[in-house]
Amino acid sequence: MTGIATIVGGGVIGGGWAARFLLSGWDVRIFDPDPEAERKIEAVLGNARHALPMLYDTSLPPEGALSFHADLGEAVSGADWVQESVPERLDLKHRVLAQIEDAAAPDTLIGSSTSGFKPSELSAEFQHPERLLVAHPFNPVYLLPLVELVGGRDTTIARAKSVLTAIGMYPLHVRAEIDAHIADRLLEAVWREGLWLIRDGIATTQEIDDAIRFGFGLRWAQMGLFETYRIAGGEAGMAHFIAQFGPALKWPWTKLMDVPELTDGLTQTIADQSDVQSGHLSIRELERLRDDNLVAMMRALKGRDAAAGALLNAYEQALDPPAGGPAFRSIDRVIPIDWTDYNGHMNESRYGQVFSDAADAVMRHIGADQDYIEAGMSYFTVDIRVRFLNETRAGERIVVDSQVIEGARKKLRLFHRMLNEAGEVLATGDQLLIHVSLETRRSCLPEGRVAENLAALATAHAGLPQPDPSEML
Amino acid sequence: MTGIATIVGGGVIGGGWAARFLLSGWDVRIFDPDPEAERKIEAVLGNARHALPMLYDTSLPPEGALSFHADLGEAVSGADWVQESVPERLDLKHRVLAQIEDAAAPDTLIGSSTSGFKPSELSAEFQHPERLLVAHPFNPVYLLPLVELVGGRDTTIARAKSVLTAIGMYPLHVRAEIDAHIADRLLEAVWREGLWLIRDGIATTQEIDDAIRFGFGLRWAQMGLFETYRIAGGEAGMAHFIAQFGPALKWPWTKLMDVPELTDGLTQTIADQSDVQSGHLSIRELERLRDDNLVAMMRALKGRDAAAGALLNAYEQALDPPAGGPAFRSIDRVIPIDWTDYNGHMNESRYGQVFSDAADAVMRHIGADQDYIEAGMSYFTVDIRVRFLNETRAGERIVVDSQVIEGARKKLRLFHRMLNEAGEVLATGDQLLIHVSLETRRSCLPEGRVAENLAALATAHAGLPQPDPSEML
Repeated sequence: MTGIATIVGGGVIGGGWAARFLLSGWDVRIFDPDPEAERKIEAVLGNARHALPMLYDTSLPPEGALSFHADLGEAVSGADWVQESVPERLDLKHRVLAQIEDAAAPDTLIGSSTSGFKPSELSAEFQHPERLLVAHPFNPVYLLPLVELVGGRDTTIARAKSVLTAIGMYPLHVRAEIDAHIADRLLEAVWREGLWLIRDGIATTQEIDDAIRFGFGLRWAQMGLFETYRIAGGEAGMAHFIAQFGPALKWPWTKLMDVPELTDGLTQTIADQSDVQSGHLSIRELERLRDDNLVAMMRALKGRDAAAGALLNAYEQALDPPAGGPAFRSIDRVIPIDWTDYNGHMNESRYGQVFSDAADAVMRHIGADQDYIEAGMSYFTVDIRVRFLNETRAGERIVVDSQVIEGARKKLRLFHRMLNEAGEVLATGDQLLIHVSLETRRSCLPEGRVAENLAALATAHAGLPQPDPSEML
Repeated sequence: MTGIATIVGGGVIGGGWAARFLLSGWDVRIFDPDPEAERKIEAVLGNARHALPMLYDTSLPPEGALSFHADLGEAVSGADWVQESVPERLDLKHRVLAQIEDAAAPDTLIGSSTSGFKPSELSAEFQHPERLLVAHPFNPVYLLPLVELVGGRDTTIARAKSVLTAIGMYPLHVRAEIDAHIADRLLEAVWREGLWLIRDGIATTQEIDDAIRFGFGLRWAQMGLFETYRIAGGEAGMAHFIAQFGPALKWPWTKLMDVPELTDGLTQTIADQSDVQSGHLSIRELERLRDDNLVAMMRALKGRDAAAGALLNAYEQALDPPAGGPAFRSIDRVIPIDWTDYNGHMNESRYGQVFSDAADAVMRHIGADQDYIEAGMSYFTVDIRVRFLNETRAGERIVVDSQVIEGARKKLRLFHRMLNEAGEVLATGDQLLIHVSLETRRSCLPEGRVAENLAALATAHAGLPQPDPSEML
């Protein structure tokens, strides 16, 4: 499903909406009297074009057409969806929304990005108030799926959900209107508590951010507050958890002391809703889901050397390198969950990754390390043959022994054997690397020290049994 | 650094501590009078042994020795670190901590896992109150790095930091003691607001959790509240952001109306702290870091088909399959950030992954799909040769054309060509697959429909130019 989306107000949020629609194949019209609007929108689009297509393992549809309009009526006329994202001032929103209602066809969906106003406040001056929906997204709009939908007729909500799903978002219908909807109420509570912590000199912005991103922030990227606490309650269940932490509501654990009374009825409501949400899974199953999600996300951050992932990399630096084996023991590790299919078997592509990592370990050993790369030289793989002999599973420990078959002038030929703890060969890799200048991207001779170390390793490996020709390139 | 850690109280938190220490090579002693303690600890250890080693790309040190003790004095004697994790009742904590102080050597580090009590409250009856530290971890303790450290002498804090870093954790020194430290103050605020939302019938536990995990929860797994808002403030800066959202503090955006006064001084303090935290990066750089982290994490969840990743998979199902090319167009996608090195070049191991994905697309095309796998049959790769011809970068669009070279009886031979948008060949892959029974894990003939589809594809590809022998297995 594609169509025409009109974005009224082209800041970070409006630009994010524009990007979502455009990259999903919709035509997008922008109305914003700010002379800088085009530049600002292009900046957001640049970010979105970098990031959004990367989410998927197949290509997105061709981009729609983007146009800028000086006249609101022209921009709105014929649009399927009009999204208002002007600043959070009620008078301004009233004025802009009234003009949108005047210009829009009767079946046009009209959404407001307001963080906090209720639809009844926004549509107070509408001729047909039920036409207005709050459609509240989260920054960056082109990546985060959540949109809170509030207000409107049931039929309008249903149509809006179809559109939002078609542009890759997750519409959450907020059934009762309330200031700040759902997510921003939680955010506002944290913001207020955070302000107290800074005001009272307890913590800095950095310390508060670290307390979030190295702890519960990781949990909340995959399960929310209640499912997390259901797990914490353990087999005794959600009601037990609430009973245990209920007394803390009376304690000064935050400055925010306006608390609801924790009646038996409220406790039961929470326990019942939690059963509906998560009751089909045992606590052990929920723990395993949580842990596998955390491992996969933390490893993703490790690949970026960011946040908790940077901590993992720093820790790993201090671990002992692999040791043992007849040749060079390049790898000693377990198979992580993000390398496996839904049955827990290692994906075939990861065998190649293990051998690529093995070659990196040989590189570091001979001194073709990060410093060497920064000095402008490296080895590139030009050819590899991988033979798959046995399967392996999540959590299994493997080692790789890497043997130098040839190591002279520009060439490096490595033969890798991947073994499990029982000593079975899981796979072999015959890998040809060429020494290159990173400046010219062409082959060249390695520098003295690296050449010497490689020659020494080749000599040490010369007496080892050679692989069978049937295993080689 | 390893040593002896004594865990007093063996629930989910105590068990998590035990796992952290044990899997980092420490000897661990458990004291818990609960007759179920050993079973409970083993359950947590089972989870930890599954998950923790997966975080790293090299193996952890050998596990330490685990022992259970019926006598607290015996468990504590000679320990380097004693961690108390009994329930949150001050009288109980006083009694247990007093026994620990009696039994511990003068230089033993004594930590309490308390979520909310201040060290001065806990150590009120200590002979040497400065011996006690709050060391507050987060569930699951064996995965989440954060530990809040409160109280104690500077020298004790420094020693505790060394130990926690050595077991892969992130010690955050909370410089002033306060009820519930830092993170639990934020959590308590969200919990209270969440209770209101349920009590008032605005949202269910599921809706609140979705509002978290599909929105700000993803942001907070990698940046916290303040760095995220710094980005939202844009080039105008943090003070501008606060000024913009400051008025909302007076509005009923949460039920929690005890708010600090937003003075110019407080605004400036926040802006200054934010500059110290993030001022070395421009807003554009912060946006790029945030987006790349989000893409990597969301793709990790996609691999698990969990949370926001399940939304991505559902959306991808509706996208058009690749089309075009002389042979079978198996892949059409961009290179995602999690496939690249720090310079943005695609890692060599991902070339093999692209060809593995290409083979999967061929499988689906001939009907060897998920249903076929569930019926007990599949194709396994036994041999592949990958030639690397050109580099590619994050964000570049690539396609793969897959040609059937042989497709009869148990064998399937695919030749893949990976191309960029300019039509340059980036890599070739010659891949031999064998049809197997998933029950016996041995080769067998494919079923009628799959065999027929494959034969038809082989016939259609027979007239295409064959690869050069130098490119083949």
